[in-house]
Amino acid sequence: MKIKDVIEKNNTKAGRIFDVFIQLLIVYSIITFSIETLPDLSVAFQRFFQLSEIIVVIIFSLEYLLRIVVTDRKIKYMFSFYGVIDLLAILPFYIAKGIDLRALRIFRLFRITRIFKLMKYSIAIETFRIAFKEIKEELVIFLFMTLLMFYISAVGIYFFENAAQPEQFKSIFHSMWWSIATLTTVGYGDVYPITTGGKIFTFFILIIGLGIVAIPAGLIASALTKVIREKK
Amino acid sequence: MKIKDVIEKNNTKAGRIFDVFIQLLIVYSIITFSIETLPDLSVAFQRFFQLSEIIVVIIFSLEYLLRIVVTDRKIKYMFSFYGVIDLLAILPFYIAKGIDLRALRIFRLFRITRIFKLMKYSIAIETFRIAFKEIKEELVIFLFMTLLMFYISAVGIYFFENAAQPEQFKSIFHSMWWSIATLTTVGYGDVYPITTGGKIFTFFILIIGLGIVAIPAGLIASALTKVIREKK
Amino acid sequence: MKIKDVIEKNNTKAGRIFDVFIQLLIVYSIITFSIETLPDLSVAFQRFFQLSEIIVVIIFSLEYLLRIVVTDRKIKYMFSFYGVIDLLAILPFYIAKGIDLRALRIFRLFRITRIFKLMKYSIAIETFRIAFKEIKEELVIFLFMTLLMFYISAVGIYFFENAAQPEQFKSIFHSMWWSIATLTTVGYGDVYPITTGGKIFTFFILIIGLGIVAIPAGLIASALTKVIREKK
Amino acid sequence: MKIKDVIEKNNTKAGRIFDVFIQLLIVYSIITFSIETLPDLSVAFQRFFQLSEIIVVIIFSLEYLLRIVVTDRKIKYMFSFYGVIDLLAILPFYIAKGIDLRALRIFRLFRITRIFKLMKYSIAIETFRIAFKEIKEELVIFLFMTLLMFYISAVGIYFFENAAQPEQFKSIFHSMWWSIATLTTVGYGDVYPITTGGKIFTFFILIIGLGIVAIPAGLIASALTKVIREKK
Repeated sequence: MKIKDVIEKNNTKAGRIFDVFIQLLIVYSIITFSIETLPDLSVAFQRFFQLSEIIVVIIFSLEYLLRIVVTDRKIKYMFSFYGVIDLLAILPFYIAKGIDLRALRIFRLFRITRIFKLMKYSIAIETFRIAFKEIKEELVIFLFMTLLMFYISAVGIYFFENAAQPEQFKSIFHSMWWSIATLTTVGYGDVYPITTGGKIFTFFILIIGLGIVAIPAGLIASALTKVIREKK
Repeated sequence: MKIKDVIEKNNTKAGRIFDVFIQLLIVYSIITFSIETLPDLSVAFQRFFQLSEIIVVIIFSLEYLLRIVVTDRKIKYMFSFYGVIDLLAILPFYIAKGIDLRALRIFRLFRITRIFKLMKYSIAIETFRIAFKEIKEELVIFLFMTLLMFYISAVGIYFFENAAQPEQFKSIFHSMWWSIATLTTVGYGDVYPITTGGKIFTFFILIIGLGIVAIPAGLIASALTKVIREKK
Repeated sequence: MKIKDVIEKNNTKAGRIFDVFIQLLIVYSIITFSIETLPDLSVAFQRFFQLSEIIVVIIFSLEYLLRIVVTDRKIKYMFSFYGVIDLLAILPFYIAKGIDLRALRIFRLFRITRIFKLMKYSIAIETFRIAFKEIKEELVIFLFMTLLMFYISAVGIYFFENAAQPEQFKSIFHSMWWSIATLTTVGYGDVYPITTGGKIFTFFILIIGLGIVAIPAGLIASALTKVIREKK
Repeated sequence: MKIKDVIEKNNTKAGRIFDVFIQLLIVYSIITFSIETLPDLSVAFQRFFQLSEIIVVIIFSLEYLLRIVVTDRKIKYMFSFYGVIDLLAILPFYIAKGIDLRALRIFRLFRITRIFKLMKYSIAIETFRIAFKEIKEELVIFLFMTLLMFYISAVGIYFFENAAQPEQFKSIFHSMWWSIATLTTVGYGDVYPITTGGKIFTFFILIIGLGIVAIPAGLIASALTKVIREKK
């Protein structure tokens, strides 16, 4: 019963130490994972990271097995959000063992899912969850309107700019890239209208669109303030 | 009487099925319309889309005629916002039949108006409409101030940059493009001041202008929060 | 007494007609002023605009003289904000008469001050003035903090990028242009850090700076909402 | 006792004069420091700034010594935030005397810390401090989520773009620069995705990320409004 408490709860000293240890290991594995993407790594470093990787996966595997052994609802845990993530964090390592090393590279993408484990331990995200729930419906509407705005602006700019810039605005799908960069005000500068019609269209799209795209953040902020106030 | 309810109302099962069917068809016609803009489409695909287009237009035409037959205020519907859109969604197909195919291309622009039919069915936009109504006057003022800001900044940058960059800042109208890209913070990077005077002017315009341009979104968000709160 | 009411008040029909007439004339003079900046204008158009300019200035001059004659506090009006603007809107025309025509071009810059006359007639700006007054002190602090942020980031980026890009980051003053484009998120792309140190510095500046620069707009929006609510 | 009041308090006339004098000197030293970074300064100007620098440092040194002499808690002041800043503002000048002049250049970076002395005298920042304290926990969470978002988007774009643009997206650390420029919507245009996968990934990252990055500013603004309202 004691091991169960250590792993599943964090109201005992041992439980907190276990939690902090796992979290630090996740952060460590994320950092090494990032460093490994650096080109021109020395052989010594590469070897160190390979060894470090093996140790991390062994500990994560033990943790995964312990969680299954300890829990009362084994099947429920295995198919829960964190159960799947816990498995995905170690699976690529075992699967890629016998196979080609390049295949492993692609599978390692799953490894970043370990980052979600970090969030699992944070209670503070609860506040966000409550606020988010309250304005869920309105957010869905604005997300829909934002997508609609992205689409309408892509169609419009396609008709204005396709003839002048056939390479940049090849199709409505290609024009979507312009819509995203423009309505989010990122404006990389790789695609922009050059015709007078396209520029006037951009003007109207921005006047209407900026409101729509900026509102969800305002809604979340005000809903959060409400939840924070009620909490105090 | 029964057909009238199916078409005009959606509180019966048949009415809801009819509504969902029309909406799915609109989404389908939008997707195929977008795919058709892709260059290098195979002949087989082109034929499929031509056939699919005919079927969609026939169903939309039947829907339009049914709506006229069924409604009590035929003239009112035909000249209503959705009545005009319903017609514009099918008209280009018939008009372009005998004429040159290139002309059809331009007429197809009307086809995206079908997207507005999607919004017709959404009740949730009602919340937005109430909030929007409450702050209508203030939004008009800020829209006016935003346009004023666009104009003033265009005049200013024209005088600072015209001599240094005659191609980019040809006239006040050409400078408006810079105003739009700058005050919305999109900043494509195709036009920007290079003179010291122009850069200092940009600084002041941004300090004052960003507030003006960002406020409408804040107003809408806070008005929406108010309506959402009152609803609950 | 009657002429006084027509010019100074707008609660009579004649007063409203006079006001609308002056406003339309201001808009007309702004549009012609903008069109005149277009290169390649035909001689016929140029002549028309010259004639139109003379008529507009005559009417504005008459309006200015009438306002002085009619008002009880002549000196106060002449040195008031709108008194000075009313004069500046017509003065360049008379001053430039005998002098070189190129000098006139520069003086015409004053002509856009006519645009402020438009705002004079708008009562709705009153709401904005009340809200602005309430948060005046906080806005001043944030304006100061924004300027401080602009300066600190310019100093920082100068030390990081001066060696790598001596042309773009010549001095702290030249680096200010980068600060403005970055902290307002315009990001033209004409100047950006290329050193690792400069990029990490940009990261921290944006994390801290975006909050500071974005807050004034939020403050104004919330203060406006308050004033609007109290009004209703 | 009188000198103590002049230096430490500002409720007497002499105290206010002393405070304003020190502040003006700080502003003056910042301006000369900025001008000195300008290339092509004449020798006369350089000499003037060297002399001016000596005078400023002497006055700041006297101020620092006076503050130590006058205060009752000497050790506490010397290790306080402003005590350290006051020392750092004068130290580089003395340290660099005997050493190489280039070393001095790097040490001068500390000189901008003088700017913090300016803030010391401003009581108005108190409002900000209270509001900041109230939402401290939520801000920490959002800062964490923002950093997480930066990291996740860097990992994602690295996998999508590394093969197509190995120079721009060399490693996850190099990809972080893209994350920063994109999620803050600065969008310089020096790095942007070119693969279809990378563009679609950018779309989803912006839809989710913009909300997260924009919320802290909204939270601060609403918390500030609350504090301002309670103050009145």
